[in-house]
Amino acid sequence: MRDADLVPRLERQGYSEEALAERRRWVEEKTGASLLHTGEASISGEDMRGNVENPIGAVQVPLGVAGPLLVHGDHADGIFYVPLATTEGALVRSYERGAVAVSRAGGAIVRLMRDENRVSPVFLFDGVAEAAAFARALPGLFEALKAEAEATTHHGRLLRAEPRVLGREVIVQLSFWTADAHGMNMIVKAADRACRWLIEQGHAPRHYVFSGAESEKRASGGLLAGGKGKTATAGVRLPARIVRAYLHTTPEGLADVWHRTVMGHLQAGTTGYNGHIANGLTALFIACGQDVANVANAAVGITSFEVVQGGDLYASVTLPSLTVATVGGGTGLGTARECLEMLGCAGAGQAPKLAEIAAALVLGGELSFGAAIASGEFVTAHETYGRNRPQGE
Amino acid sequence: MRDADLVPRLERQGYSEEALAERRRWVEEKTGASLLHTGEASISGEDMRGNVENPIGAVQVPLGVAGPLLVHGDHADGIFYVPLATTEGALVRSYERGAVAVSRAGGAIVRLMRDENRVSPVFLFDGVAEAAAFARALPGLFEALKAEAEATTHHGRLLRAEPRVLGREVIVQLSFWTADAHGMNMIVKAADRACRWLIEQGHAPRHYVFSGAESEKRASGGLLAGGKGKTATAGVRLPARIVRAYLHTTPEGLADVWHRTVMGHLQAGTTGYNGHIANGLTALFIACGQDVANVANAAVGITSFEVVQGGDLYASVTLPSLTVATVGGGTGLGTARECLEMLGCAGAGQAPKLAEIAAALVLGGELSFGAAIASGEFVTAHETYGRNRPQGE
Amino acid sequence: MRDADLVPRLERQGYSEEALAERRRWVEEKTGASLLHTGEASISGEDMRGNVENPIGAVQVPLGVAGPLLVHGDHADGIFYVPLATTEGALVRSYERGAVAVSRAGGAIVRLMRDENRVSPVFLFDGVAEAAAFARALPGLFEALKAEAEATTHHGRLLRAEPRVLGREVIVQLSFWTADAHGMNMIVKAADRACRWLIEQGHAPRHYVFSGAESEKRASGGLLAGGKGKTATAGVRLPARIVRAYLHTTPEGLADVWHRTVMGHLQAGTTGYNGHIANGLTALFIACGQDVANVANAAVGITSFEVVQGGDLYASVTLPSLTVATVGGGTGLGTARECLEMLGCAGAGQAPKLAEIAAALVLGGELSFGAAIASGEFVTAHETYGRNRPQGE
Amino acid sequence: MRDADLVPRLERQGYSEEALAERRRWVEEKTGASLLHTGEASISGEDMRGNVENPIGAVQVPLGVAGPLLVHGDHADGIFYVPLATTEGALVRSYERGAVAVSRAGGAIVRLMRDENRVSPVFLFDGVAEAAAFARALPGLFEALKAEAEATTHHGRLLRAEPRVLGREVIVQLSFWTADAHGMNMIVKAADRACRWLIEQGHAPRHYVFSGAESEKRASGGLLAGGKGKTATAGVRLPARIVRAYLHTTPEGLADVWHRTVMGHLQAGTTGYNGHIANGLTALFIACGQDVANVANAAVGITSFEVVQGGDLYASVTLPSLTVATVGGGTGLGTARECLEMLGCAGAGQAPKLAEIAAALVLGGELSFGAAIASGEFVTAHETYGRNRPQGE
Repeated sequence: MRDADLVPRLERQGYSEEALAERRRWVEEKTGASLLHTGEASISGEDMRGNVENPIGAVQVPLGVAGPLLVHGDHADGIFYVPLATTEGALVRSYERGAVAVSRAGGAIVRLMRDENRVSPVFLFDGVAEAAAFARALPGLFEALKAEAEATTHHGRLLRAEPRVLGREVIVQLSFWTADAHGMNMIVKAADRACRWLIEQGHAPRHYVFSGAESEKRASGGLLAGGKGKTATAGVRLPARIVRAYLHTTPEGLADVWHRTVMGHLQAGTTGYNGHIANGLTALFIACGQDVANVANAAVGITSFEVVQGGDLYASVTLPSLTVATVGGGTGLGTARECLEMLGCAGAGQAPKLAEIAAALVLGGELSFGAAIASGEFVTAHETYGRNRPQGE
Repeated sequence: MRDADLVPRLERQGYSEEALAERRRWVEEKTGASLLHTGEASISGEDMRGNVENPIGAVQVPLGVAGPLLVHGDHADGIFYVPLATTEGALVRSYERGAVAVSRAGGAIVRLMRDENRVSPVFLFDGVAEAAAFARALPGLFEALKAEAEATTHHGRLLRAEPRVLGREVIVQLSFWTADAHGMNMIVKAADRACRWLIEQGHAPRHYVFSGAESEKRASGGLLAGGKGKTATAGVRLPARIVRAYLHTTPEGLADVWHRTVMGHLQAGTTGYNGHIANGLTALFIACGQDVANVANAAVGITSFEVVQGGDLYASVTLPSLTVATVGGGTGLGTARECLEMLGCAGAGQAPKLAEIAAALVLGGELSFGAAIASGEFVTAHETYGRNRPQGE
Repeated sequence: MRDADLVPRLERQGYSEEALAERRRWVEEKTGASLLHTGEASISGEDMRGNVENPIGAVQVPLGVAGPLLVHGDHADGIFYVPLATTEGALVRSYERGAVAVSRAGGAIVRLMRDENRVSPVFLFDGVAEAAAFARALPGLFEALKAEAEATTHHGRLLRAEPRVLGREVIVQLSFWTADAHGMNMIVKAADRACRWLIEQGHAPRHYVFSGAESEKRASGGLLAGGKGKTATAGVRLPARIVRAYLHTTPEGLADVWHRTVMGHLQAGTTGYNGHIANGLTALFIACGQDVANVANAAVGITSFEVVQGGDLYASVTLPSLTVATVGGGTGLGTARECLEMLGCAGAGQAPKLAEIAAALVLGGELSFGAAIASGEFVTAHETYGRNRPQGE
Repeated sequence: MRDADLVPRLERQGYSEEALAERRRWVEEKTGASLLHTGEASISGEDMRGNVENPIGAVQVPLGVAGPLLVHGDHADGIFYVPLATTEGALVRSYERGAVAVSRAGGAIVRLMRDENRVSPVFLFDGVAEAAAFARALPGLFEALKAEAEATTHHGRLLRAEPRVLGREVIVQLSFWTADAHGMNMIVKAADRACRWLIEQGHAPRHYVFSGAESEKRASGGLLAGGKGKTATAGVRLPARIVRAYLHTTPEGLADVWHRTVMGHLQAGTTGYNGHIANGLTALFIACGQDVANVANAAVGITSFEVVQGGDLYASVTLPSLTVATVGGGTGLGTARECLEMLGCAGAGQAPKLAEIAAALVLGGELSFGAAIASGEFVTAHETYGRNRPQGE
């Protein structure tokens, strides 16, 4: 490897249109690719500053719309059309079908039960005695810790600091309210300052700002207890006739699929239970400029289907770790901003609304997926809508 | 909800430019959003058929390049520049840093240990006796089952059929070779035909094509045993001086971060162990037209840092469930095709190569992330590169 | 700490009655306890050799009997009375109730789907390339490996050797058939010899005989795939009238408890799903001289209740990791031998039978526990049978 | 199955010596076993009332002593000799070795960070809206709830009531202080009364006292967050010379075993990480009249070995769910009482002390087990001490 192999940074890190073009040409030369579509971005290079480095353009992801989706939340109330960016044939159709079924049944009831984000630094001590002493002292230090943390941010609020002793280390779970931002960068900065203060004051000899226990962008059982983003629950009661008409199965059919596939989830040692939550969230996140890698944590959830009195179906999803934002990150970029506007969720004050719509969307998706299994139509649907199969298939 | 609220399908499902424009206008009217950027796609509507339904355009995701990444695999051998589509500031820089460190140390060694995809239907019986009898009979039916399954596909090959009795049901794990396709649709179709044959022949009374045990787009412990996509391992030995020069820490520093954060992962009940595998895979998957929701399973892995003889660092990642494709799905679309070309991975015969590059990329990312924790530079890096913070932060 | 504080080993490690008495007196002096009951063992000290060190007598655990339990297995067929050693009031009554209900419904159908035990050594290499090469070479070495392993045992048989590459290490899962012994010591010895042979032959530089992946005496998702002991499934179909008469609830009631408590298991990140499998297995294991610590792995299982056609209840348990023995370990000792005799399971050839009875017992226990929750009688039952509450309660 | 097959209950449930003898004879006749040792109990039948039903005597489990074990806790301070009831050869020797090593290094530091037990009832509602409303109202009902719960017990104290909405149900985690009792029966009774009050007052339509989320006698990730019994951490720093002299390895050797076996635990999807915690806890629990089935939850923990400055080893174990009692249950029975006396832990006020000793014991056991792997002596040790192998081995 020679220095000549390094990607050119260019002037001011190279975000001008010329810089993008120059870097694009450099990549073309190095790799033999021709980057025509990649250069066709309508977002300007400068607008990408803060969102990407070494930019060469933008990728395009097909955008479809699923709806109408009738939502009754504390923040979202009404009919929504949900932008979904995907290349998986049949996905939009499946979510659309679920959304229509939910809406025909009167809409999804959605509630947010917790709204916070978490960072979990770890402090290391000489031994168990010192670690335990620190953990026992921490409640008395909370107000000072909070002041330090909040000195770095206008919006974040430190809610709790909960220590856990593991041998000679102490993991401290710091829970923050982050307003409408995803807030991970915000709270890591706040946490880091609070940690450094603890060390400067002699309360602990050293620390890392991440312990691994924060489960950022990873699936873990710990996420099910909530605290990494919004905890949302969406539910709907569907009369049997709606299940039959829109989902081509019965309440009993969906309850049976639930029973059987719960067994399979348990067998596989799955974190939580769901049909395909990741599908809808990923498509929504790409469309709306969310941090898409957060799907790893946000798709952890628990879906339930059951037959209730009168033979109706009650369906619900609970998403304990739904990390969404309507300001910051990629939310302001061209298409992302437009997609958020489609939902009435662009800008400050809209993150809870976006979370409620996401939960309702996922509820519809779970119904549609479960129904495709119950009715045996899964394969047919993919045959119909998924054209781009490998050559020869 | 009225019928007028349904998204217009238009003629032939509406993939012409006019149809996209008309549907876009319909959405603008319904939602009040103005979809300017969304309409700026250079991919044609017809090209999106099979990848999305109810299309209204395309979203744009900023594209950066990380490299050089020196890879020594069985399929990928040489220097690569990796396209990463993201809106998370500092991500490309972090992966670039890791790639450079890996390359300076001589490159990542990568091996694929398994290459197959899996679908796990469930069969339901009257009782345990019948379920057990079916499971015991299954090996004798394998050749016929294989013939049925493979009748639906030119490329897929049924490798094994492994039954597991759970009470009165039997989950059968069907493992397929899928060539260069992701292959989930392909093998679900094949599995469904094989299942229906078993039922027609009277071997089982009923089935669902998914049992939940396949862990498609979900994190599960079962994925760690492999079989859902490619199982890839990448490793590199870094001299202490390279760790210091490029990663601003020491082999001991990274080993200590590993120990501490493993404790945190265990505390949180995480599936596997990793720093931020989801970050790199998501950005690569969006760029290259992969099924991005598969990050939920593909990001399950195990990272290791340890000091070895001579004081060097040995770093590795193992990704047991890496679902990638170079044909089918979104891989042929404008920017995706170009990104695959950047890696020399467009088209048939390239999926193993893409998997090896992905594993090497992730290895670099894990090193860079761990180093940022070890050196305490994590916050600084995000301050420098992540501009688009919420207003006022 | 002084040398005088060491527990006296006495002549020939001190297993004579005099030695036990002398050591008992020594402990009494050191601790102030008076060990009257402890000295009342009817098992001789010499009989304890090989089962315990530094012996001072025996503890007594109350022994009750639950039955009749009607079992229809491949090995156990008929009515059994199951010895349960416990101090938990109501436990025997609860298992008895379940056993009677199962028997009245025609008995439990039980099948063993796998019968093997596992040890998973780990081999360490310089890097990923060498690790992968070893894993690829291993199939070709199997016959030699098998010969080495089996040279250490008359009974154990090496069935498979499955490698998994994790970075620069390779975990090799060695699966053995162990006849009627629990066999862990037997197969660890065999595995160790096989490993040493691989190292002597230059196939690997070093190893540990345990990698942690064997999940011996630990709960893990990996156990659900089977292979650590016997994989047993027991099921029964109960008419509604039997559910009502013996369990004081309805099939629908038990199905509802299942649904609700599955949700709770998922929420808690539980390995598998069960009501209280550990209760019955522990009491049976203590009674029958099993290695009781194996409950940690053996209690991992999946219970299912569902309403089937005609309104009956189908109940099942699947125990993928049931480690039981009828020879070796504590199985020959006084009371243990008698308890095994109660089941017709003493000595060679009886381990599969014991496993089937254990699974049927657990099935009854799950029914009774679930029914106590469904009917709201759990508290009452414990009030009636659990007398020894703390003073004043 | 005939009524004649039912186990005879006899007068007043049959706890007199005559009743035990009569029931024993009945079992002998039914099964053909001869129950000589079983009848040799020195505990009287009447003393077993409340601990077992259908009693026929007692089983004897060999009792060894491991020590000296030097403990520095808040409650246990000094040298202890730990009674271990087991039939697994080499177990006592292994724990003794660990105890001696810990003691020679100055003793184990132990701290209890939490002391409570938990029951998690579930309440079911018509839909998500009602479930969320209940969860939001619960904090305002806490004082009344606490009064109801505590009306059933002299000792238990309700500390917190934390609701979690899952679809249309709400799991309420009720955390209690239970003094020196294990307390599960106590708090289930208290919880049930509190639940019934909520229902009588119209706050919820129906409930089950268990949701599955309490993880009683099951392994779950949720246990790692603590709250099911005592959360104990024990640690010790061992100079390299003590590691060599007593454990036949080096600090580096143990750290390497830790790294490798953590990888194996992750691979297997294990809950937490440990060598063989279940071994020591099971033997201690059988000896001391604990509820042995609680090993399923109590053995969930996290062990750590690492080399620290100066080349010493720091070893620790954290047991988040250590359910022990010194009053109630089986703690008052003959041999159990004597074993508790050996530890100075019989009766009221001693449960925290017992927990600290248990954690220190486990710490020694983890060291000894890890060392046996590191040194390659595991097989030899079991050859020497484990005599009772199956015939012919």
